[in-house]
Amino acid sequence: MTTAPTQFGGPVLALADQRGGLGGVLRDRLASTVVVMERELRTAGGPTLDLVAYVERYRGKMLRPTLVHLAGLACGGLSPEHDIAAAVVETIHLATLVHDDVLDDAEIRRRGQTINALHGNEAAVILGDYLIASAFHLCSSIADQSVALRVGEVTKLLCEGELLQLHHRDDFDLELDEYYRIIDRKTASLIALAAELGARLAGADDETVRALEGFGRWLGIAFQIRDDLLDLVGEQPVVGKDLGKDLDKGKMTLPVIHHLRNADAGQRASTLGLLERLAHGQSRDRDSMRSALEATGSIDAAKEAAREHLDRARKSLRGLSESPARGLLDELAEEALRRDR
Amino acid sequence: MTTAPTQFGGPVLALADQRGGLGGVLRDRLASTVVVMERELRTAGGPTLDLVAYVERYRGKMLRPTLVHLAGLACGGLSPEHDIAAAVVETIHLATLVHDDVLDDAEIRRRGQTINALHGNEAAVILGDYLIASAFHLCSSIADQSVALRVGEVTKLLCEGELLQLHHRDDFDLELDEYYRIIDRKTASLIALAAELGARLAGADDETVRALEGFGRWLGIAFQIRDDLLDLVGEQPVVGKDLGKDLDKGKMTLPVIHHLRNADAGQRASTLGLLERLAHGQSRDRDSMRSALEATGSIDAAKEAAREHLDRARKSLRGLSESPARGLLDELAEEALRRDR
Repeated sequence: MTTAPTQFGGPVLALADQRGGLGGVLRDRLASTVVVMERELRTAGGPTLDLVAYVERYRGKMLRPTLVHLAGLACGGLSPEHDIAAAVVETIHLATLVHDDVLDDAEIRRRGQTINALHGNEAAVILGDYLIASAFHLCSSIADQSVALRVGEVTKLLCEGELLQLHHRDDFDLELDEYYRIIDRKTASLIALAAELGARLAGADDETVRALEGFGRWLGIAFQIRDDLLDLVGEQPVVGKDLGKDLDKGKMTLPVIHHLRNADAGQRASTLGLLERLAHGQSRDRDSMRSALEATGSIDAAKEAAREHLDRARKSLRGLSESPARGLLDELAEEALRRDR
Repeated sequence: MTTAPTQFGGPVLALADQRGGLGGVLRDRLASTVVVMERELRTAGGPTLDLVAYVERYRGKMLRPTLVHLAGLACGGLSPEHDIAAAVVETIHLATLVHDDVLDDAEIRRRGQTINALHGNEAAVILGDYLIASAFHLCSSIADQSVALRVGEVTKLLCEGELLQLHHRDDFDLELDEYYRIIDRKTASLIALAAELGARLAGADDETVRALEGFGRWLGIAFQIRDDLLDLVGEQPVVGKDLGKDLDKGKMTLPVIHHLRNADAGQRASTLGLLERLAHGQSRDRDSMRSALEATGSIDAAKEAAREHLDRARKSLRGLSESPARGLLDELAEEALRRDR
């Protein structure tokens, strides 16, 4: 049972449709990526299959598979191994969503209940493990073993980013460069890998592979800054998942770090008190936090930082020869930042 | 910093010493397996490295690496890839211990605090993910890609076994064949893989690979039955980890299944009541459960089942030509069943 592919890609597919045949190509490739994923994940029986079927609804715009395919197209063309790589990266992404929801005690994801809310933390932990194992199993079918090595390396780095973030929980003195180190590892590394693998499997030279990898990295950082902003100032019905989780969990993000560095002593003390109460479940007052952040221009500063990283991403593409796929990567970056969910 | 290898293997190494140079060979190979593992796991920095260093104490007798090496020796000899395969299987085993302790709310492992007790469930979940990713990363360095495919397949199966077990929580009607299906997947599959990979990497023919895989499978089932027995009738200071966890978590194991099938109606009703109370934290009365199991001969029946599976394991070795390693595999099976911790 294959889910209709038309739901994927969203605005990116609309943009692709404006670029000759690119919309059709991308639609086909996302559909075949889904077939590869489902074939890998649905070998399981019984309770595992039920959970897998449920978690497939977490697929959203399939940003990472889209990047694999567009990077491949921009670098010379696609092979069936692009579908495998796209499925691998998306499956690892799914695993991180399932485990992140356990870590965050999250109840809502993509407008539905999370696996942990529905079936408990234990099922969510094991299902995430099953997804990781499936990703690596699938990856082992790619003839070039350097792909599996890179996937292993990046998945390790991703976990290191998560552990670093956990280490800094309730660390209200978190420095900006450490924040960037965390989001680079936990988020940008996998998005960078998607673009890198797309280029690598298209036979691109080292410089081009590095350019695409850089594109993914800066895009990923911009993306995470945007995500962190939404957690602070988004609206739950629009975003479709629990918000305010970062404050609940004592996670410092860019707007808060900027605010604490720029507030006067009195405001700083007041914000620290609020952060303490939020992190210890003694307050749910997100509105006061939002007002405080606005007073120091910290929301705008974070938007500006996302914009700067986006510009870096687009600059990474400069050395590539002109193509519809390159043009779409450029627009995709812009679109990713516009997203409000 | 490499931990002294002499602590590994325990009784198996003592047995190996009685077989010519086998003790020395095995000691060397376990030591180089540890070097491979540490090189893989200690690439991380900061908080990840601290957790990795702590979790290395979970290494016990290194049953799985021992099986990789002995199977290799019994099938023609060892290569450096045996060290990699041994490190891969042991690292996946470590990951399952870390995640199992989260699932079981366990506080004690190898006479020390568990990762979840020390650092919380979140750190334990991510550390387990890091270990799985490390195992697959390491595995990708083996030239024969069929090894990585098998490791992926078996790790998926292992998760399916865990999910099946979770699905049957508080299922006091669990049938015996479903119990065997669970332990075959969650425990025996990885032990079977260790023996299989040892043979495969030594260039053994298909029949021999299947024989070693069978040896590991039956040994693994005997081993899990023994483990389930210890959880019911063992003594915490001797076993070195929390006991009674299966009853707390509503997990039906062989002695309990046997008891419920063989008790008279009155006893059955009384046991079901006790199981309910234990699973819902309303009782800690393990002694009554133990007496009930003894009254129906269910402890002895489980010991007998473990013995039967052990005999099957040893029979699997019959086709192999005589060698010190084959002899030691035979004794290792016997030794595994004698273990009281």
